[in-house]
Amino acid sequence: MSANPGSENRRLLLHRRPEGIPTAADFAHVSDAVPTPAEGEIVIRNHYASLDPAMRGWMDAAPSYMPPIALGDAVRATVIGRIAASGHPDFPEGRWAMTLGALEDYSVAAAGGFTQLIDADAVPSVTNYLSVFGAVGLTAYFGLLRIGRPTPGDTVLVTGAAGAVGSLVGQIAKIKGCRTVGIAGGPEKCARLTERYGYDAAIDYRDKDVSALDAAIRDAAPDGVDVIFENVGGDIFDAGLLNLNEGARVALCGLISEYNREPVGARNLWQLIVKSARIEGFLIRDFLDEFASGAVEMGSWLADGRLAFDEHVELGLDQAVPAFLKLFSGANNGKMILQIANDDGSAA
Amino acid sequence: MSANPGSENRRLLLHRRPEGIPTAADFAHVSDAVPTPAEGEIVIRNHYASLDPAMRGWMDAAPSYMPPIALGDAVRATVIGRIAASGHPDFPEGRWAMTLGALEDYSVAAAGGFTQLIDADAVPSVTNYLSVFGAVGLTAYFGLLRIGRPTPGDTVLVTGAAGAVGSLVGQIAKIKGCRTVGIAGGPEKCARLTERYGYDAAIDYRDKDVSALDAAIRDAAPDGVDVIFENVGGDIFDAGLLNLNEGARVALCGLISEYNREPVGARNLWQLIVKSARIEGFLIRDFLDEFASGAVEMGSWLADGRLAFDEHVELGLDQAVPAFLKLFSGANNGKMILQIANDDGSAA
Repeated sequence: MSANPGSENRRLLLHRRPEGIPTAADFAHVSDAVPTPAEGEIVIRNHYASLDPAMRGWMDAAPSYMPPIALGDAVRATVIGRIAASGHPDFPEGRWAMTLGALEDYSVAAAGGFTQLIDADAVPSVTNYLSVFGAVGLTAYFGLLRIGRPTPGDTVLVTGAAGAVGSLVGQIAKIKGCRTVGIAGGPEKCARLTERYGYDAAIDYRDKDVSALDAAIRDAAPDGVDVIFENVGGDIFDAGLLNLNEGARVALCGLISEYNREPVGARNLWQLIVKSARIEGFLIRDFLDEFASGAVEMGSWLADGRLAFDEHVELGLDQAVPAFLKLFSGANNGKMILQIANDDGSAA
Repeated sequence: MSANPGSENRRLLLHRRPEGIPTAADFAHVSDAVPTPAEGEIVIRNHYASLDPAMRGWMDAAPSYMPPIALGDAVRATVIGRIAASGHPDFPEGRWAMTLGALEDYSVAAAGGFTQLIDADAVPSVTNYLSVFGAVGLTAYFGLLRIGRPTPGDTVLVTGAAGAVGSLVGQIAKIKGCRTVGIAGGPEKCARLTERYGYDAAIDYRDKDVSALDAAIRDAAPDGVDVIFENVGGDIFDAGLLNLNEGARVALCGLISEYNREPVGARNLWQLIVKSARIEGFLIRDFLDEFASGAVEMGSWLADGRLAFDEHVELGLDQAVPAFLKLFSGANNGKMILQIANDDGSAA
């Protein structure tokens, strides 16, 4: 692998559609020429890429909220970096920009739309645009407040609670006066839930079946659950459904346990009927009109030191696949970010 | 079995909790003394009982929206009949009344609450209080309009579409300007969907897996589905979820395919996320404040001949179990009602 940026564009291609957990053989590392921008386009020297569970869905052929990644195309990802070449006067070379690009050294993007300039000086780390100031933060904010609609005194159950989104959801729920119960894998993550993210109670899902999970939730939330922020699915979701209060809301954000297998599904839907409860899916695009107001409120909490957040940075484009897989094994602590380039633009 | 009412109270008891499809051995026919009312109570000579899929849930030990039927108790059911003895001045003997009683000749009930007088002369048949003028009609009305929230031009998919609730849902959706697609079992029921209940398209679920059901729905609803009124669950629900439009609403009324087995669950929940769609459960108790206005509107459609409805009456308390099981085999056409007594009060 070359450490000579500017002369080549290393890219991670989707070679075949994964069955179950992706393996290295599903991808191909190639090196192409560095692209040049047409008029209205820019070329970004990618410094960081966001690695998200949703990317697993884009690797399948099934219809989703965006087209599947075509076989032979680079693996789609949100990236940030410096503009290396510009065909648009509002996007000068050297400025930081963000786009829905791919796992590659250089991404070509049409200026505007999802491709926007970002101000690296306005944030503690430019990577924050991939975490708390980006889709992750907005997902937690709008998913909890607009879909979960907690009121003070409610009990909010968060699955995947130590993850990038879940850790923020718990803290926002506390700010809103709720009791919070988080589910995560392993004693270290559970300690992090209560000690760092302020959860009132933490449940380790490991080695627990639906019945044991149900008992653990009942113990942690004896008055029942008013809101579930669901990131996981499967047994964990089944157990959560058994603890709903009347009129409860489930904000369905993700189903990470289901992405690499035939889904086991939600087998306690009957509880929705007997509790007059609902499950509602969402994407942050649903709240486009409110992004600014949400960002202002999140920003104020951050400025007041009321939100802790974590980023897990893995180094190097050649680590893309193992880093991505850590999302599914739970080996990450915080938002998973792949560093592609060093500050000076050399390969990380 | 005696045909001598007044001298005994034949009752169908829950002998043990069914596993899977109930069998005759799960129940016991007994004959007790006819009860006498305490002050404030009435004794109803039951003429008709409503047989509903939800009763299967009451036979399980699992928590639900009402307590399980205790072993050794008579099988709970909504019943109508004439007051045989009264301990309450507002409930005179001989008047028709309705209560949540049981499958038995005589039910004791506290006057008031769910126990109400009904006016047999106000309806074509007193049995209508167990169908279109009862819980069935209100379930269809409020479930579709308040939970499904269709707007004119929407496509509404109804599962269990030939059933008591489903047949009304399709007609109400048509009245509201929607395109309706119904799913039912067998060519006769499908013919009934389009010819009698006005469905725009009918799908026979028999011998179709999820993929074939998906294709059939896509064919019948090429512009996608805005509202699902779900009565069935399992493969049929999985296929429906694959056809949701953005912002679609699923009114979850029942899961009849799941009641007699380990639930297979909803395995396409991912579609809720990518379509920003929701599943919402409900019980008609949620709309208690609106019962009167709903009944008025349903009544006006009935008076105008805009709603067809069907009742399937089986004769005799000794037929209770086989009649109940027809709900799950789909052998009924219309609201399943068990006739316990003839007009003169003799055993039916």
